Amino acid sequence: MLEMEAKARVDDLGLVRERLRALGAEFRGEERQEDLYFSHPVRDFAWTDEALRLRRAGGRSTMTYKGPKMEAVTKTREEFEVGVDDHEGAAAILERLGFRRVARVTKRRELYGLEGYRVMLDEVEGLGTFVEVEKATPPYRPEELVALLKRLGAAEGAMERRSYLELLLRA
Amino acid sequence: MLEMEAKARVDDLGLVRERLRALGAEFRGEERQEDLYFSHPVRDFAWTDEALRLRRAGGRSTMTYKGPKMEAVTKTREEFEVGVDDHEGAAAILERLGFRRVARVTKRRELYGLEGYRVMLDEVEGLGTFVEVEKATPPYRPEELVALLKRLGAAEGAMERRSYLELLLRA
Repeated sequence: MLEMEAKARVDDLGLVRERLRALGAEFRGEERQEDLYFSHPVRDFAWTDEALRLRRAGGRSTMTYKGPKMEAVTKTREEFEVGVDDHEGAAAILERLGFRRVARVTKRRELYGLEGYRVMLDEVEGLGTFVEVEKATPPYRPEELVALLKRLGAAEGAMERRSYLELLLRA
Repeated sequence: MLEMEAKARVDDLGLVRERLRALGAEFRGEERQEDLYFSHPVRDFAWTDEALRLRRAGGRSTMTYKGPKMEAVTKTREEFEVGVDDHEGAAAILERLGFRRVARVTKRRELYGLEGYRVMLDEVEGLGTFVEVEKATPPYRPEELVALLKRLGAAEGAMERRSYLELLLRA
């Protein structure tokens, strides 16, 4: 329910893959993810720092709510995710309730496991390449997340706290 | 997506079961359904004649949106339903989005199939016993639905257009 994550823009995912291999990370798969973001009927999610997403990936569909970020450096926030058996049906329910489709984020994601962290290598359509690290169980130590990003080759100053949605909407 | 339904209060479900048998209805199963209804953050669903429900039945959970009734006698309305793999997670997402749990309707339901209709025998906790008939494919002919209720033993004047939720909130 609580999730801590941090990401950084990287120029060369190949270098990150080499670091992952050297550190003994476990490759867990890759998939194309199509994320559909919704606006709230009366709240401005950009202001309240929340997000509502329908993700389609690997033949499955999930509905996710992300709460406001609770900490400055990384992105620790409440997250609820449920699988839904009908992507278009779920979108229709949200639209009837007054939510609006605001943007679609499409990416190719590789997933790795490393020292209790999830590591994701993302190629985001229209945005570029990123490495993201994530932890969904305590202890939550932001500094370790940042240190891990650096060990994976992320440059000082390449940390990106904005979401892909925010980046796309500003682009 | 369009659904036409009508229901009537009946005193004796045993008599309805006999009629169903005599008409050659097919018994399709029975289950206990626990329906959790939500209010909208800014709309008054009682006024807009909509409903948002999470149903737990037979180990499965579904999220359902019902649109305003479009016709006077029966209840023809738009309906979207999706299965969700985590009942409590779905409720948490809705609550974080500003929806509130307003009431829980619990019933034992027997389901039959008859001449292209779904026939439901309901024992609703705190409300009594009802027979409901439903059709989710064209043609939509309200008068046939009402006629079917009568053939199943519903008395003239026993038709109930209000939902179980409305009836429970008024009780």
